[in-house]
Amino acid sequence: MKKDLLTTTRLSVNEIESILDQAQLFSEGMLWQPKQKTFVANLFYEPSTRTKSSFEVAERRLGLEPIPFEVQTSSVQKGETLYDTVRTLESIGIGAVVIRHGEDAYYKELSGNVGIPVINAGDGCGHHPTQSLLDLLTIRQEFGRFRGLKVAIIGDIAHSRVARSNAEVLERLGAEVVFSGPPEWFNTEVGGKNQRFVQIDEAVAGADVVMLLRIQHERHMGGEKTDLEDYHLRYGLTVSREREMKQGSIIMHPAPINRGVEIADSLVESNRSRIFKQMQNGVYVRMAVLRRALENMEGGNKHVIADQKWPIAY
Amino acid sequence: MKKDLLTTTRLSVNEIESILDQAQLFSEGMLWQPKQKTFVANLFYEPSTRTKSSFEVAERRLGLEPIPFEVQTSSVQKGETLYDTVRTLESIGIGAVVIRHGEDAYYKELSGNVGIPVINAGDGCGHHPTQSLLDLLTIRQEFGRFRGLKVAIIGDIAHSRVARSNAEVLERLGAEVVFSGPPEWFNTEVGGKNQRFVQIDEAVAGADVVMLLRIQHERHMGGEKTDLEDYHLRYGLTVSREREMKQGSIIMHPAPINRGVEIADSLVESNRSRIFKQMQNGVYVRMAVLRRALENMEGGNKHVIADQKWPIAY
Amino acid sequence: MKKDLLTTTRLSVNEIESILDQAQLFSEGMLWQPKQKTFVANLFYEPSTRTKSSFEVAERRLGLEPIPFEVQTSSVQKGETLYDTVRTLESIGIGAVVIRHGEDAYYKELSGNVGIPVINAGDGCGHHPTQSLLDLLTIRQEFGRFRGLKVAIIGDIAHSRVARSNAEVLERLGAEVVFSGPPEWFNTEVGGKNQRFVQIDEAVAGADVVMLLRIQHERHMGGEKTDLEDYHLRYGLTVSREREMKQGSIIMHPAPINRGVEIADSLVESNRSRIFKQMQNGVYVRMAVLRRALENMEGGNKHVIADQKWPIAY
Repeated sequence: MKKDLLTTTRLSVNEIESILDQAQLFSEGMLWQPKQKTFVANLFYEPSTRTKSSFEVAERRLGLEPIPFEVQTSSVQKGETLYDTVRTLESIGIGAVVIRHGEDAYYKELSGNVGIPVINAGDGCGHHPTQSLLDLLTIRQEFGRFRGLKVAIIGDIAHSRVARSNAEVLERLGAEVVFSGPPEWFNTEVGGKNQRFVQIDEAVAGADVVMLLRIQHERHMGGEKTDLEDYHLRYGLTVSREREMKQGSIIMHPAPINRGVEIADSLVESNRSRIFKQMQNGVYVRMAVLRRALENMEGGNKHVIADQKWPIAY
Repeated sequence: MKKDLLTTTRLSVNEIESILDQAQLFSEGMLWQPKQKTFVANLFYEPSTRTKSSFEVAERRLGLEPIPFEVQTSSVQKGETLYDTVRTLESIGIGAVVIRHGEDAYYKELSGNVGIPVINAGDGCGHHPTQSLLDLLTIRQEFGRFRGLKVAIIGDIAHSRVARSNAEVLERLGAEVVFSGPPEWFNTEVGGKNQRFVQIDEAVAGADVVMLLRIQHERHMGGEKTDLEDYHLRYGLTVSREREMKQGSIIMHPAPINRGVEIADSLVESNRSRIFKQMQNGVYVRMAVLRRALENMEGGNKHVIADQKWPIAY
Repeated sequence: MKKDLLTTTRLSVNEIESILDQAQLFSEGMLWQPKQKTFVANLFYEPSTRTKSSFEVAERRLGLEPIPFEVQTSSVQKGETLYDTVRTLESIGIGAVVIRHGEDAYYKELSGNVGIPVINAGDGCGHHPTQSLLDLLTIRQEFGRFRGLKVAIIGDIAHSRVARSNAEVLERLGAEVVFSGPPEWFNTEVGGKNQRFVQIDEAVAGADVVMLLRIQHERHMGGEKTDLEDYHLRYGLTVSREREMKQGSIIMHPAPINRGVEIADSLVESNRSRIFKQMQNGVYVRMAVLRRALENMEGGNKHVIADQKWPIAY
């Protein structure tokens, strides 16, 4: 059976723990390869070198062969539907697709309709499940548990792909989540009924995990256009706020970082920061997710098309 | 001896049958690899994700190593000739080049002058021999022969890379070809002396193979600008026209498909459609063509440059 | 210890000879592979298909796995520093980076700060050490020595990445260097104290190596805008100037070539030309440089981040 990964919301706690277990084993050197040569395609309709490179490394560590797919020059430009593109890739023998796309829930037209697994690498303002899972792995490595942890998610919560799904899954796993940042970037539909918006100093000082979100200049150009230095002082992790953090607490950020905006330059590689460790964990999580998608597909997708032929004696 | 693939027109019937035989064997699981590590470069001066991905998969199935070549940032931008670009690739050890280029017969400056085989992946409004060959393979798989088959080629015949060369080669192989579509897109020089232009309903109803061509919005922007719904009703494969098709007849399309224009949405994956099978066959045909190009090249292209040196004692 | 390659100026004569020895051995078929799967990333912030393809081939001949990195869509566009980009690549397990960048000495922020070797594939108007080394290898293959050779470097000396560093290193190796070309493109700071600017006919007739530089249309658009035919007659290697060249002397050019501008079309592949041999040597030099960078890194860069974790019992 093919195993898509579309959102963390759809994953049960058991499934999440199982992916994290696999990722942990990969981080400790576990090897796994599919039994036959397996091609994958990374379809990034929105730029993301970091996530794409991370998938590429994960794929190659598993011995998979990524086939280059350049969105800028693809048939999507000629009006081809995403469904037809994925069916094409399936036809030429691709075993799984990793997709980032600007449209929320783009995967709805694919899931259940195409014969190969779809791994969501980010959809619009929707989900980014491998980012969520790497965040979870980093937290679990640090604390050995989720239950009872206090996590503060800080920044542009309304537009973040991971803020809401991280909050949802962290609460399911037993952590307590608070939000902070500019109040105008928060709305109650983001957090569930139990979630609280708190002032930045309180959020930072009370948290085991300070999870910063990236300011997306792209989205805030017109209108509000927050002044960056001002943002840092009001909502950023400044050197003085960091001094108030709990013993043993950690700093996370999905990157790319705006140094001096969401976080003081000197804190990016401080003892408390797990930012580069998150990136490292991203590879292990993606290896786990790819294995999960592919290991029940062995034998490939040939059957889908191979007998597409009229009987010869019509 | 190096074996270019430039047009199907230059291939004898025996050569065509031999390529199709090899492709058929690859489709049945035949393995072949060159004896040494072999690099290839895919030079796509015009975008074509589908054809490019298909070549990439074919190359990797043969154990070849495609070297990325980004035309947008290449020295062609700095005024380098195509000949110098290919000679450069030859110098750095590339074993074969696959080229798509907007200029008709771009390969004339290469063939016979460079030391490595050139595989044409489409030239201007000229040829697209691997597309033709995959069409032939799909037909041969279905009917086991070409002689006596009726093939209707429908659409923008004047601008199609494959309409004319498919017609030429199908007639050489013993099939009967008719054309249909908007009369203004047809001219007698396209079809040879024996070829007939027929009305759409007659073309579809009489054919063993309905070969649809893609409407190229790009080319028809100015001027005529056919309304798409109107095109579908007048020249497309509608649901009602499909009902009149012969028993055992099939539908082909080179893709990308404009659903609802050349073909009704519901027919794209109908029992009669071989559209995705064509894509699958594309990989096997390209494997055959690459093997043909490379298997007499073993030992590589080193000799070309290795002794480019004055005698030391001048 | 990690071994960057930033400039040839920083390399001792012994180090240069050692890289050339290795490159020579690779040209003769020597094999070398790192003991474990090793990823590299080629970061080309300025386009250069030739250099990039050459690195790609070198990497694959060594069994390395290049991870695609598309600068156009990278986080640099989102304001990420080069340092953070390289640290990211290090975090996801990349073993070495090859960088071309438009800024002079861009590597200063990296060298000593990141944990993986940096290979400079060209910085602004600064250096291009692998180009210099491939030029040296080509000369050494031809003459077996540098001492006593006369090298004429001709063209846009002021803006060339290799003119100055080639001159510096050739003089250290015992050759005599003269410059020629448009006087306005030469300034005394380019050549050291001993270097001479001579007229084109004298430069060509007296040289063992005529090293042509590319006219960079890009840089000379506004203002002077040399007429190309006029340039050829006044400063190019014309057919008649070539006739005056010494017996056994050779022609070099870094390419891409402007045929009929820096060099007469008919001379590009003449007996005297080593232009395509330079390209071939580029692969061997890059193999040597990559081996040098990686062979002391075995065991990888894991330690950098692996224990970034608070003690569990805080």
